[in-house]
Amino acid sequence: MNAFSSNFKLGILGGGQLGRMLIQSAIDFNIYIKILDGDANAPCRPFAHEFVQGSLIDFDTVYAFGKTVDVLTIEIEHVNVEALEKLESEGIKVYPQPAVIRTIQDKRVQKQFYKTHLIPTADFILLENKEEVHQHSHFLPAFQKLGKSGYDGRGVQRLKTTDDLAKAFAEPSLLEKAVDFEKEISIIVARNARGEVSVFPPVELVFHPEYHLVEYLFAPAQLDERIIAQANEIATGVAAKLGIVGLLAVEMFVTRSGEVLVNESAPRPHNSGHHTIKANYTSQFEQHLRAILGLPLGATDTQSYAAMVNLLGEEGYTGDAVYQGMEEALALGGVYIHLYGKKTTKPYRKMGHITIMDTELQALKEKVQKVKVLVKVVSE
Amino acid sequence: MNAFSSNFKLGILGGGQLGRMLIQSAIDFNIYIKILDGDANAPCRPFAHEFVQGSLIDFDTVYAFGKTVDVLTIEIEHVNVEALEKLESEGIKVYPQPAVIRTIQDKRVQKQFYKTHLIPTADFILLENKEEVHQHSHFLPAFQKLGKSGYDGRGVQRLKTTDDLAKAFAEPSLLEKAVDFEKEISIIVARNARGEVSVFPPVELVFHPEYHLVEYLFAPAQLDERIIAQANEIATGVAAKLGIVGLLAVEMFVTRSGEVLVNESAPRPHNSGHHTIKANYTSQFEQHLRAILGLPLGATDTQSYAAMVNLLGEEGYTGDAVYQGMEEALALGGVYIHLYGKKTTKPYRKMGHITIMDTELQALKEKVQKVKVLVKVVSE
Repeated sequence: MNAFSSNFKLGILGGGQLGRMLIQSAIDFNIYIKILDGDANAPCRPFAHEFVQGSLIDFDTVYAFGKTVDVLTIEIEHVNVEALEKLESEGIKVYPQPAVIRTIQDKRVQKQFYKTHLIPTADFILLENKEEVHQHSHFLPAFQKLGKSGYDGRGVQRLKTTDDLAKAFAEPSLLEKAVDFEKEISIIVARNARGEVSVFPPVELVFHPEYHLVEYLFAPAQLDERIIAQANEIATGVAAKLGIVGLLAVEMFVTRSGEVLVNESAPRPHNSGHHTIKANYTSQFEQHLRAILGLPLGATDTQSYAAMVNLLGEEGYTGDAVYQGMEEALALGGVYIHLYGKKTTKPYRKMGHITIMDTELQALKEKVQKVKVLVKVVSE
Repeated sequence: MNAFSSNFKLGILGGGQLGRMLIQSAIDFNIYIKILDGDANAPCRPFAHEFVQGSLIDFDTVYAFGKTVDVLTIEIEHVNVEALEKLESEGIKVYPQPAVIRTIQDKRVQKQFYKTHLIPTADFILLENKEEVHQHSHFLPAFQKLGKSGYDGRGVQRLKTTDDLAKAFAEPSLLEKAVDFEKEISIIVARNARGEVSVFPPVELVFHPEYHLVEYLFAPAQLDERIIAQANEIATGVAAKLGIVGLLAVEMFVTRSGEVLVNESAPRPHNSGHHTIKANYTSQFEQHLRAILGLPLGATDTQSYAAMVNLLGEEGYTGDAVYQGMEEALALGGVYIHLYGKKTTKPYRKMGHITIMDTELQALKEKVQKVKVLVKVVSE
């Protein structure tokens, strides 16, 4: 395989913002990109060499698409894995591998994988139906997570007391002990087919003091050296045990007693790595390409603090997107805007992100607060 | 003008590698891009929202194209300026302004501009025809430069002794005293419509010890503080006197006596700023967009040394491009490849560039030499 040859084609399942940023990076390597997505207005469309509109979960569609490319990757894990397995068996390089996607796609399988491989994670119970939830009320407070189709907050709910049991999901799920964590962090690991591994510095998620919502992320996370070493060990361990080729984002809790527990993983570029485009020698997107194309991995270090704020559609606005406060935000200095080209905004839709850089952590955090006040996505 | 509105269109005259890298950057701002280029296979084509094939020097073509966009910019200065002047008079924002392009487009006018505005530059004589060259043989050794159509080394020749006069150009030209320079440097200035100005750190051109050829460029240039201050003063002075909105790359000689003389300027993103994509907070391409879209300019500082090697088509090869040694070069670490997507290679054609970064200057220079040996563009 030579990705730099003129007839090489990379297929991507999914045409959202992750695919779009992957294309921006792939232009540097002159990689021919073919996208499959169900949405005719997918963010990738204007920049893909070829765009196929079709379902990511339909066997025939994914199989037929995969037969036309040399390497197939994903930017979303809710894809038809059976088609990927058949493609892999027929010699198409599918990275991450179908077996990895299968393990991660179902949160029940993913969680069981951690347990089997002695990867520290919060205690949990697998549930088949709603009745079983009631048998485990001693396990509350807990999070109930659907095995499949949970995405971007959907399919996850907090069950605090027995009063909440009435709203429990009926589909196969898992009940996970709520972790009294001090910090939530993320580490993105890259692994290529030769087993070469590299990690990005850990990212720290900052929660709003009143609402339980991620306000922004910053890197590198402010942690003891010992905790960082432990988190790196765990994250690279998950990647190695999965045998993944590509990126793996490992989200972890750091408890008050200094334990590191895996929350969940994603086998692709990840929201917690967007700042790497500006702040790190190699971005997560180029690193993903290097990993799946069999190239040496790039340096992941950074020379300044960076924060990332998701630019979400403002509550109360649905329609053609209008961006407010961009000029004022850019004027703060060290502010970099990345829009995803989504025509329509709706409440909480991810419309873009803003990377903020500063050599001082306190100054960075102050700038984040200013940016959050200034920038809004509304509709016409 | 609001560049972030959904009906905003940016037109670019020229669809080469500079336009391509400008598009990569414009994706971040979700800017709709329309390209005009004569070549159906221009490097920009796969990534432009709209691509028009047509002549950049034809009045009607440029005028009709310009009428369809909100802001019009260039990635090559050999365009029809009369059409730009008409567009400007009709309210289209043309940045850089037609008057600036007119001044720079003709090297005779450009050189006279420096003289008129007391900008230090090498002595010169304007020549109308071949006969006049002979009258100025006392001026040798000198460079003869054609007023128009000199580009990428064409239209420039060295006249060392009277023996060389036979090969002198016949068209209107200028004869410029050869400068016994110690270093050649470049500074890229950005200026927006409010007159806000920012400069990138100076870049140093490294020449091959035997052949008079640029081997690579690195930044920041190794110069006395006093020389840097002088060069910045000159470069920003040229931008201010031109009143340019957009980027201006000012190439300068530093003489053995510590004088700084302007060689020539280009009113657009420039080869000497390609390393900024990886090495500086803001890349020259984003800075150009910020300048022409009326946005605050970004920080230009860097936190490591960076070198840029042009990836030229190897001598003796013409045909479908094949890239050799990429994997080996990437394995050196701190090596970033940027290909321009040109299908066909030919001797000395600019096929891409490689940015190399290191925190140590000596280590950087050693890596440059390794990259130059490893990477080759040949044909199938």
